[in-house]
Amino acid sequence: MRYALILAGGRGTRFWPRSRARTPKQLLPLLSAKTLLAETVARLRPVVPPERIWVLTSRQLRKRVLRQLPEVPARQVLAEPVQRNTAPALGLAAQVIHRIDPDAVLGVFPADHHIARPAGFRKTLRPAYRAALEGSLVTLGIAPRWAETGYGYLEFASGVKPGEARPWPLRSFREKPDLKTAKEFVESGRFYWNAGMFFWRAAVFLEVLRRYLPNTAALLASLPAPGDRRFNARLKDIFPRCEDISVDFAVMEKAENVVGIPAGDIGWSDVGSWNAVYELSRNDAQGNVARAELLAHESRGNYVEAPGKLVALLGVEDLVVVDTPDALLVARRERTQEVGQLVKLLEKQRRNDLL
Amino acid sequence: MRYALILAGGRGTRFWPRSRARTPKQLLPLLSAKTLLAETVARLRPVVPPERIWVLTSRQLRKRVLRQLPEVPARQVLAEPVQRNTAPALGLAAQVIHRIDPDAVLGVFPADHHIARPAGFRKTLRPAYRAALEGSLVTLGIAPRWAETGYGYLEFASGVKPGEARPWPLRSFREKPDLKTAKEFVESGRFYWNAGMFFWRAAVFLEVLRRYLPNTAALLASLPAPGDRRFNARLKDIFPRCEDISVDFAVMEKAENVVGIPAGDIGWSDVGSWNAVYELSRNDAQGNVARAELLAHESRGNYVEAPGKLVALLGVEDLVVVDTPDALLVARRERTQEVGQLVKLLEKQRRNDLL
Repeated sequence: MRYALILAGGRGTRFWPRSRARTPKQLLPLLSAKTLLAETVARLRPVVPPERIWVLTSRQLRKRVLRQLPEVPARQVLAEPVQRNTAPALGLAAQVIHRIDPDAVLGVFPADHHIARPAGFRKTLRPAYRAALEGSLVTLGIAPRWAETGYGYLEFASGVKPGEARPWPLRSFREKPDLKTAKEFVESGRFYWNAGMFFWRAAVFLEVLRRYLPNTAALLASLPAPGDRRFNARLKDIFPRCEDISVDFAVMEKAENVVGIPAGDIGWSDVGSWNAVYELSRNDAQGNVARAELLAHESRGNYVEAPGKLVALLGVEDLVVVDTPDALLVARRERTQEVGQLVKLLEKQRRNDLL
Repeated sequence: MRYALILAGGRGTRFWPRSRARTPKQLLPLLSAKTLLAETVARLRPVVPPERIWVLTSRQLRKRVLRQLPEVPARQVLAEPVQRNTAPALGLAAQVIHRIDPDAVLGVFPADHHIARPAGFRKTLRPAYRAALEGSLVTLGIAPRWAETGYGYLEFASGVKPGEARPWPLRSFREKPDLKTAKEFVESGRFYWNAGMFFWRAAVFLEVLRRYLPNTAALLASLPAPGDRRFNARLKDIFPRCEDISVDFAVMEKAENVVGIPAGDIGWSDVGSWNAVYELSRNDAQGNVARAELLAHESRGNYVEAPGKLVALLGVEDLVVVDTPDALLVARRERTQEVGQLVKLLEKQRRNDLL
C-alpha cells in the first residue's frame, strides 16, 4: 500500500518576521490562502488518502500541524523529541509505519515546497511508487530551468530525458554548486534539481539503514509498538543518540539500488526566500506584488506584505517590505536569502519575543 | 509691550503617515520629545512671557493646541473659522491684540520650524522688536548655508553682513528660485532665506493693511471687542470674505518702511520633509537615524520611525520608513518632499480614515 510521509519539522527562518519559531515556513500561507503544509496534503490526496498520510514534525509544532490537517488522524502525526537530520527522521517514520504495515511503500515529501503544476507532479508519482515497490530507493529529479546555485543536483546516467517519467540510474548526488558548475550541470542535460522527495518500501529502507547507519537502525529497532504507552519515553531516550546526518549522505550516495525519476517542468520550487515568493506570485502592471492595500508612486518590482494596512511606496524599487505587529523587515529583494542571518543576530541577542 | 504670535494653523501633509488632519506637523514631536509648537513657545519664553504669547490656529486644532500649551491663557489661542493665507490671518491677530493693547509690538513666528541655536535666535529678537517699535515692518533673514531651492529669499541692500543683527534695508522678496538662481543668490552675499518671521506694531500693520488691502482691513475693523459674545459669529461671517493672499505679496513687497534683520547661522530649518528630519537628527555609525529598535545589516543612510517595533533593514540605503498602526510609508529619502502628492491621491480616493 502507498503511504505519504510529509516532513514538517523545519524551522525556515528565512521568512522572518512572518515566520516565527511557532509558525515556521510550512505553516504559513505564502502562496495561496492555504499554508504550504495544507497545499502539500491537498496535492497528494488524489493519490494517497488521508488514512495513509503521515506527518513528521517537532514536539513544538505538533498541535499546530494537527489543527491545519483535520483530515489526518492524530496518531499519524509523529513528533521528533529533538531535531535531527533526515536519516534518523526517515528511519523513525519507516520503523513506525513498518510495524503497522510491513508492506508499506513510502513517498517522502517536504511540507514547505511549492509545485505550480500538481497534475504533472502526480503523473511522476505512479512510476516512483512502482519502482519503490520493486525494491529501489527512488528519488525525484526536477529538470532545471536555470543554473540555480541554491539547490543540490542529481546526476543521471546518460540518455536521460526530462518528463519521460521512468526510473533511470543515478550517478551521484551533488551539493549546491557554484555558478560555473551549475551552468555546466544545466548544459549537460544529465543534472536535475534534487527536490528532496524519496520513495521506498519501509522494509527496504530499514535494511539499508541497518547496513549504513547500524547504530541508528538498532536504536530505532528498540522502540516498542507505536500504540505502546512506553513509546514516547523510549523515543525521547534514543532519538538524541541517533546520528545527525542527511539521508542523501548516509544512504543514497552509498546504496546500490538507487534510481531517479526525471520529472519534466512541474513548476517546482523550494520557496527559499521572500524573493522566491515574489517570483512565484502574479505581479501588477508596475511589477509589484502586494498583500496589503498598496499605493505605489514610481515604485517597481517590490514585494509588500502588511495585512490590514495601507502601504505607500515612493520612488523605491526591488524591495521586500514585510510588516507584523512587533517587527518590520525592509530588505533589498535580491538579498532576502540572507534574512536567516538577521534571525541569527536576534538569537544572539536572545530576543525570544521576536523569534 | 512685546507680544509673540505663533502661527499654528498649517496642514503640513508632508509628514504623512505620522501627520494627519488632526495632528499636523506642528503638533508632532519630530526633532525632540516636544512638539515643534511646544519648542517654538519654549524658545520664546525667555523673551516673551506666556501672558503675551498668542497663537493663531484652526477651529479643528484649537483644543489640541490648548492641551499642548497649558501655560498660554485660552483666550489667547485664536481660531480661524476657515483657512486663509497670512495677510488676513495676521490682520485678524493685529486687530484683536490692538484692541487689548494699542501699543502692542508683535513678533510673528511659524509653529513648525526648527532652530538649532535658540540663544543665537533670541539675540536677533531685541533689534527686531526695537525696529518694529520704531515703526518699521521687520522681517528676519537667515544667512543661507547652501543654494536651497525650497525657500523664498530676501534681497538686502548691499553692504549687509550676516550676524550683524541690526535693521537693514530690503530690496525685494523673492519666490523659491531655480538652482542656478539660488546659487547666484548665495554667492552674492545679499540674499537671505525668508524664514516667515515678522515684527511690527499692531497699529502700524493695521495701517498698511488699510492701505494695501482695504477690503480685508474694513472687514476686520468691523469685529466687536474680543470678549464680546458676538465676536465668533461675526468672525465666521467676515473671515471667509477676506482676501486669500500672503503677507509678503500683499504688504511687504509694497510697503516702504520694510527692513530686514540679517541673522547669522542660528541653525534655522523649515523642516520641510522627512529628509530634513533625517538631516537634522544625529545619525549612528552607519548613518541611520532610528526612532525604533533598529537591526541594520549592510544598510546606510536610512530614517526609520516605528514606535514600539523592531525594524530590520537588509541591504537598503537612503530610505525613509515610517510606520503607524494603519499606514506604512517606504520612500526614497531624497524624494520625501513628494509625500504631499501621496496624500493628494488619498484625498482623491476619499480615504478620510487615513488623512
